[in-house]
Parts: sequence; structure tokens; C-alpha cells
Amino acid sequence: MANLNEHYRDLKDSYLFSEIAKRVDTFAKAHPEKKIIRMGIGDVTLPLAPAVTEAMHTAADELGKAETFRGYGPEQGYAFLREAIRDYYAKNGVRLQSDEIFVSDGAKSDVGNITDLFAVDNTVLVPDPVYPVYVDTNIMDGRRIIYMDANADNGFLPMPDRSVHADLIYLCSPNNPTGAVYSREQLAEWVAYALENRAVILFDAAYEAFIGDEGLPHSIYAVPGAEKCAIEFCSLSKTAGFTGTRCAYTVVPYALEQTAADGTLLSLNRMWNRRQTTKFNGVSYIVQRAAAAVFSEEGIRQVREAIAYYKGNAAVIAKTFDSLGFRYFGGLHSPYIWMECPDGMKSWDFFDLLLEKAAVVGTPGAGFGSNGEGYFRLTGFGSREQTEEAMQRMRALLG
Amino acid sequence: MANLNEHYRDLKDSYLFSEIAKRVDTFAKAHPEKKIIRMGIGDVTLPLAPAVTEAMHTAADELGKAETFRGYGPEQGYAFLREAIRDYYAKNGVRLQSDEIFVSDGAKSDVGNITDLFAVDNTVLVPDPVYPVYVDTNIMDGRRIIYMDANADNGFLPMPDRSVHADLIYLCSPNNPTGAVYSREQLAEWVAYALENRAVILFDAAYEAFIGDEGLPHSIYAVPGAEKCAIEFCSLSKTAGFTGTRCAYTVVPYALEQTAADGTLLSLNRMWNRRQTTKFNGVSYIVQRAAAAVFSEEGIRQVREAIAYYKGNAAVIAKTFDSLGFRYFGGLHSPYIWMECPDGMKSWDFFDLLLEKAAVVGTPGAGFGSNGEGYFRLTGFGSREQTEEAMQRMRALLG
Repeated sequence: MANLNEHYRDLKDSYLFSEIAKRVDTFAKAHPEKKIIRMGIGDVTLPLAPAVTEAMHTAADELGKAETFRGYGPEQGYAFLREAIRDYYAKNGVRLQSDEIFVSDGAKSDVGNITDLFAVDNTVLVPDPVYPVYVDTNIMDGRRIIYMDANADNGFLPMPDRSVHADLIYLCSPNNPTGAVYSREQLAEWVAYALENRAVILFDAAYEAFIGDEGLPHSIYAVPGAEKCAIEFCSLSKTAGFTGTRCAYTVVPYALEQTAADGTLLSLNRMWNRRQTTKFNGVSYIVQRAAAAVFSEEGIRQVREAIAYYKGNAAVIAKTFDSLGFRYFGGLHSPYIWMECPDGMKSWDFFDLLLEKAAVVGTPGAGFGSNGEGYFRLTGFGSREQTEEAMQRMRALLG
Repeated sequence: MANLNEHYRDLKDSYLFSEIAKRVDTFAKAHPEKKIIRMGIGDVTLPLAPAVTEAMHTAADELGKAETFRGYGPEQGYAFLREAIRDYYAKNGVRLQSDEIFVSDGAKSDVGNITDLFAVDNTVLVPDPVYPVYVDTNIMDGRRIIYMDANADNGFLPMPDRSVHADLIYLCSPNNPTGAVYSREQLAEWVAYALENRAVILFDAAYEAFIGDEGLPHSIYAVPGAEKCAIEFCSLSKTAGFTGTRCAYTVVPYALEQTAADGTLLSLNRMWNRRQTTKFNGVSYIVQRAAAAVFSEEGIRQVREAIAYYKGNAAVIAKTFDSLGFRYFGGLHSPYIWMECPDGMKSWDFFDLLLEKAAVVGTPGAGFGSNGEGYFRLTGFGSREQTEEAMQRMRALLG
């Protein structure tokens, strides 16, 4: 009899987005005249940049002709894209070899699949509130998970606790859902902690393109020593509106080694290479060409316009909350605004109030973990017009 | 300290294709005047069908406009594609629900990732010779692997041995590397064996589109009962030249359940859905549109032309071997010809002979497992002209 992986039975179903959809649906049916504004959206809305779609057209033409057709490509990604990503890192002051960069179809895939490289007997440290994939992928393998508190006291940026030992550490900066961003000094503390514990940091930099302050690190490799203890995940999903186009990249430095039970040093770069060449066949050629166009001079200029637009929306929200005296986190180097619910309200109560009285939809913070209770996530991914309209409604309701 | 998954140390490096490349390189340098013909290629060479590239252009335009832009899609694939695949199955007499079909970026990904659903303590049965991914992905998890002999006596189509118990069974038909195809009756025996053992068959149908005989099954679900014991992997890689475009699909029937330790019945469809929604974000929209075009009337006609061309090449090889009195398998419903090396030669000796004396490159069967020793794989994926030229050279050398 085939024995199943029963760790799957330990997974909790996430009711967050289905519960939101249900409540919005009920409201919409009861109030068909109300124009609902969705500010909970975690997905981009602006179209792909012209440089990107142009690259897609060119690649489609290439694939349609025998002379320029492409079959299997390298599982790790084409050199033209790996080198473009390497050069992009160099602009942020981080030197990588292109063979340390692995192209994939998504940061979610890589964050999930990276667990393949680790034994079950590791203690996993994740922040609360948290992006659920870090938790669920480890529950699937049966690893022990411990949580660290992210809260208003630490600005939703938890720091290492030397009394706690962890083997795998998930960090996300700029953070989803809170929008909080670690400074270089804070990341240096995490790197020091990881090196002391011979732990591996799994660093999610999916929102790095939203950082607008040159003093803030776009990559954990801005910290010396991180190449010995960190794997970094990044994506074009939010950088270039690729949520439906699918392209990401993961950095596994050559310097990252861990000691096997018999004392042998094993290279995580080589292990990930083996994993990907065995269980993956590379990203679509047309998508890789589209991704390379993002890193062209023209492409970078165009995608930065879209990011500026989303950040402009976040600034509209922030300005409103400043004038209303609301406490919030994020929004400056992130599309996310993480607000404290007014008057000590609970997340779902505030959700209902905002829906019923202003027809504005956000995401209850409690859905991201126990420390999210009493918080609420709004995003800058809508249109400027709708964002402004939503803020007028919130001002009228709560001002 | 982060403990690594040391099962990776049990993996053997595959020297097959690197060794071939090395020997060919040495020969090319020593004989720059010789025109080498590569008949070992396992990759398609004809361009994408016009219906497919047209769909790519349309989708690229959609993504470039705000009104038609697509962000995150369903992880399992868009309904338009799942329904097209469902209808394609129906044409082969297999009824599926579209929710039993999961779209992905590759059969290799799914064949690798499906192991996530199973506990380590399962016995895995694989044929020898074999596509190495079945073996390596289970070594990575530490599962016990047992082999069944595929050889000339059973036409490289091993049948169940009731004295052996297995929990997971890998079958590939039409087979890579041997080109052998199971009949409906043979698959029915495998289904009966799996049901008796409460085992799960992992059925790789990546080459189903090469089947030209209506009596041969394109899918294991042509056998009643298979829906209770089999997962099927299929791909557009060879069906429509998508090796560089990346789109595949996996069928996990609702009827496929297994009993947990406490007696609860668990649905593998629901487990795979949880795996994919947690660790995957769906296939690129542009690629899904391209894939849907394959299943259009025009698309099917166009991709069948390419398959007929590759099969025509295989027929050229088969005809030559018939006249030379060589024994071979496959070729009729497969792009692969699996030949017995003449005069009892070993695989690598024949490789060297063919390279040195005819400048023709094939794949030594020994690279696919011990039963491949003495065999040699040639493929129909080259051009007609080169295939004919290669056969003339082989006739001159071996006739």
C-alpha cells in the first residue's frame, strides 16, 4: 500500500481570502448600488512594460522559425538572463557570479522547493505575522516551527534572540504583509546570529524594487558574511508586473556550505543545481526573453514608472492616515500599508465596518498570524483614482 | 546547525550526455572535415506551429494593455486550458473532469514533485532501462527502489510479478528510451496488480501523441479502474514542440484515494491541489494561451504534421534496419528506435565505431540502466535529409 505523506493532514486551510470573498459577495448582493473599492489586492494591475511585450513578440517570432527555434534550454536559465541579473545586483553593490543565480518560474516555487535540500530535523524560525508559504511548506515536511514576535514595539522587525536556537530562518524585507524594511545594521545582526548558529537564512527580497532609500539594503548580500549563510529569493512579479508571466530568481552563493554528519562540507549551490536539473526543466524561452528586457536600460526605466505609481498610491494612503492620526507601518518602501485598527478594534470587526460603511475592502491582519490581530493591510496596487476615493470614504467614516 | 538532506549524496552523477559530448568534441577536433550527424538528440527541432505563435502574439498584446492585463492566474491552470485538455482526452475516449487536470511547466517538474505526496517508507518499482528522473527523485527522498527487467524477451515491456510487492510503480508508454508501447491488455494487468497491492501507478504518457494505432491506449485511463490507482503525466514538449516553451499537465483523478494510518481515506487530488497551490503559482499566461492553441482544430492539424515528420524519420531508420537485418524496438509509435548493437557489441563500443567510421552520434543504451547494455538509441528528431544521410553511412559501414 502506498503510504502518504501524512504531514499534509497537519496543514490548516487558509480561510483568509475565501472568507473575505464570501463577506464581500454577501455585501455586494445586499447593496448592488454600492461601488466597492478593493484595497486588499496583493496583485499588480498595470500592464507589462512595452520593452517586455516587444521582447515577447520577438521571441514568439524566433520560436516560429526553424533557424531560430529553441528547444530545451539550460535548467538554471539562459546565460543572457543570469548575466543580466548579475549586472542588476552589481548596480546595487552586490557582486555575484552568474552561476550563483538560478532562474525559475516563481519565488513561491523556489521558497517551497528549497526545503528539499534540508533534513527534517531542523528548527525553523519564522516571524509572526508571516507569509503563509514559509509555514506550510515546512509543515508538509514535518519540521519544527518556532515563531518570533513582530509587533509595534519592534516596528514589525524582529531581531535575533540569542537564547533561541534556529537552523533555518525566514526573513522577508520589505515585508509582506507589514511593509517594514530591515536596515543594513539589522540584517548584519541576523547574519551574525546565523553564522554563530551555523543556520541558513532564507531571505525573501520579492519587494526589493520598492526600496527608495539608498541607505536601505536591496539584498542580504549587502552584508558581508551573508554569502556564507543566506539564500536569497527574488522575483519579477512585483518588480515588473510578472505575477501572470512568471519569472523569478534565487541566489545560492558558492560560499554557502554546511557540514554533513561525517564532517564533509557540502555546497548548497551544487545541491540546488542538482535539485533543479533533476526536478525542473527551466523557464519558458519567451518568458526569459521578456525578463531580460526588464533589465535593459529602457525596461528598467519603464518598470520603475509602474513602481512609482504604486508607491504614489501608498503615499496617498499614508498621507490620509497621518492626517487622521492613525498608526501604521510600511508604505514608504513597500506597496503595503499595515495599519493599526482604530479604537482598539479587532481585524475582522474593522474589516466589516469598512466594508459596510465605506464599501472598502482590505485584508484583516489576523489572517497572517496572531500578532496581526488588531491590524489591517491595505495595498497600493489599485488605481490612483480608486485609492483617492477610498481615502475620502475612510476620512468621512473615521475622521 | 542546518542539517542537510544527505540523501543527495547517494545520487550518482549522470555522465551519459557529458561523456557523449566529450567524445564527440574530441572526434570533431581530430576530424574537422567530417560532417557529424547527431541522431542521439532527444529534443524537438521543428519550429512552433503558426497557431501557437499567433496565440503568443495575441497574449503578449493582451498583457501590454491595462484592460486585458492578467496578473496571478489559478495555480492549477486557467479553465480555458484545463477544459481544452479535458476535451482532448474525451477524443481518445477518456472522460475526465477539468478539476482532475493540473497544468504545469513540465512533466519533469510534476514527476519530481509528486514524490512530495508520499511517505519515505514506500517501495518504488521502476523498469531498467529507465528515464533517470524516476530514480533520482526517489533517491533524493531516501525511498527503496527495486527494478524490473525490460529486455528483448518481454519486448522491453515488463509485466507485473506477483511475487514482488511495490507501492509506487513508474510506467512510461510509449517508452523513453526504448520506444516500446503497452497494449490495453498489458496496462489492464498493471492496473489489476496496482489495485491488489493498493499501489499507485505513476504513468508517463509524454509520447502519447506518437501513437498511430487506434487499438493502442494513449492514456492509462483507457483501462477501467485506473482512475483508482494511477496518476498520469503528459506534456506538450514532444506533442507540440514545447521543450523550450514549457507546458505540461498531470491528471489526478478524484477516485484516487489512499488509506491513512488511522484508516481515513485521503484524496490525492486534494493533496496535489494543496501541494501546487502552496508551492507553485501556475504557468505563464502567454504559455497557457499557446498551449490552448495546440488543442484548437487548426493547432492539432499543425502539430500532427510535425509528429508525422518525426515519425517519418523513424520509419527511414526502421526501413534501413529491416534491410540490414538489425533487431530493434520502437520507432513505430515513438520517435525512438532502440536497436540491438550488431555483432554483440557493447553500447559504448558501438558508439565509438559509429562516431569514428560514420560520424554518426547516437546514445549508448547502457546509459539508461544495466539492461540497456548492448543497445543503442537513435531518434527521429533530426531533419529528413540528415536522417537519410546517416542511414546511408550506416549501411555503408555495417551492410
